[in-house]
Amino acid sequence: MAAKACSVLNPGATRGLGLEMVKQMVESPWPVRQLLACCRDLDGLRAEGLRDLAKKHPNVITVVRLGEYSLCSILLQMGSLVGKAGLNVLVNNTWVLTHGTMQTTSTQEIQAAFNTNILGPMDITKRTFKMYLFFLMSATKSGKPGMFCSKPAVVSISSMVASMATVKEMCSFFPMASAGLNMLTLCATEEFRKDEILFAVLHPSDWKGGEGGAIDAPESVEGLLSVMDSLTEKQTGVFLDYEGKVMPW
Amino acid sequence: MAAKACSVLNPGATRGLGLEMVKQMVESPWPVRQLLACCRDLDGLRAEGLRDLAKKHPNVITVVRLGEYSLCSILLQMGSLVGKAGLNVLVNNTWVLTHGTMQTTSTQEIQAAFNTNILGPMDITKRTFKMYLFFLMSATKSGKPGMFCSKPAVVSISSMVASMATVKEMCSFFPMASAGLNMLTLCATEEFRKDEILFAVLHPSDWKGGEGGAIDAPESVEGLLSVMDSLTEKQTGVFLDYEGKVMPW
Repeated sequence: MAAKACSVLNPGATRGLGLEMVKQMVESPWPVRQLLACCRDLDGLRAEGLRDLAKKHPNVITVVRLGEYSLCSILLQMGSLVGKAGLNVLVNNTWVLTHGTMQTTSTQEIQAAFNTNILGPMDITKRTFKMYLFFLMSATKSGKPGMFCSKPAVVSISSMVASMATVKEMCSFFPMASAGLNMLTLCATEEFRKDEILFAVLHPSDWKGGEGGAIDAPESVEGLLSVMDSLTEKQTGVFLDYEGKVMPW
Repeated sequence: MAAKACSVLNPGATRGLGLEMVKQMVESPWPVRQLLACCRDLDGLRAEGLRDLAKKHPNVITVVRLGEYSLCSILLQMGSLVGKAGLNVLVNNTWVLTHGTMQTTSTQEIQAAFNTNILGPMDITKRTFKMYLFFLMSATKSGKPGMFCSKPAVVSISSMVASMATVKEMCSFFPMASAGLNMLTLCATEEFRKDEILFAVLHPSDWKGGEGGAIDAPESVEGLLSVMDSLTEKQTGVFLDYEGKVMPW
């Protein structure tokens, strides 16, 4: 990514890993040209960090209030920000995890997780492609052949808890609607391989924003950005942790 | 299953594999005591096979119209049919597959598949457990230790298309909301292990009811019933094909 200034759409930038990602993207040597950060309650206490960052980097960060503007308006705004150079990276980072069991989890809770983890990322990815083809534009404009995060890429933040292989060890979670984001990535990888759009799912580690996490958000995001930086077409459709280790689906 | 007469709830018995399963369960040497077969349009042309079977085996098959009765009423009816002996086998066989790609599949189509493949099976499984504990009753009443389909079991019919491992080869499908039934089974397996309720997911082969299928419904169901008959606690939480071969998640 260091090779070419890039533009990023971050739909969940209010706090936690999403906010830390905004911070590191604009304050590290990353050449982020434009970053559209979405936030549901921009005036709220929890958005203080994002407000401060946006004030500090007014030429790079643009904050959009989710809810006030439709997804269509947000993408139009993104379009006017990035112009013909196109959008490089969409970070699907709004993923939520359902705690509990089949018996304690209501249909409404599963539906809410499904909306956030699957329908939301699917909708934003589809519309970004359909409405403006920024990804494709930036793909054709880049001189270097192959797939990279300096070219069109969709990176989804999921979790090892969404893996079919870890259910037995993760019994306090009910990741029913979570595996879907992984499946969406696998399907989209094949669908957009010919268009040279890179897809990946990343596990941010058991970071301290979660319960009893092992590492803090800066360390996790540092790892995630380093992994994103190293992605090529060899990794499209992979599930990696923040250290680049391959995770089982 | 040959060891003990069992009772079966079949929520999708109108046609295809579901109907063939009803047929083989009541006409084979299987000692099915009661079979509750659910059907959405019982008067329709497509339900002719089920109507005929129900007439032929009035003491074993009870047909319930889905839509006319609530799930609660259906389970109450099941309760009065099986009595204290309890319900043994719930066959989640209403699974549907979404064809297409991310670009051609609408949010409504994905939601419909999610309702059928995940919310429906989750709801019926939860309510069956919660309302009557038939499974638990029959589990404690059975003398033979361990898990079998002659004791409480939930068998879900899914497909290898829902496997994360086969997405690359199955590019005409969009199994986004399909992997969830597999994940549900994995979660429920752990949740109900202590209650000795057996869970499994079966792949019915590329049967001829599908496009360009390899085998016909009788052969597929014969295999599925044979696999169900062989299940023990060693197989709880597995994904097997109709010949008993382990499938990747």
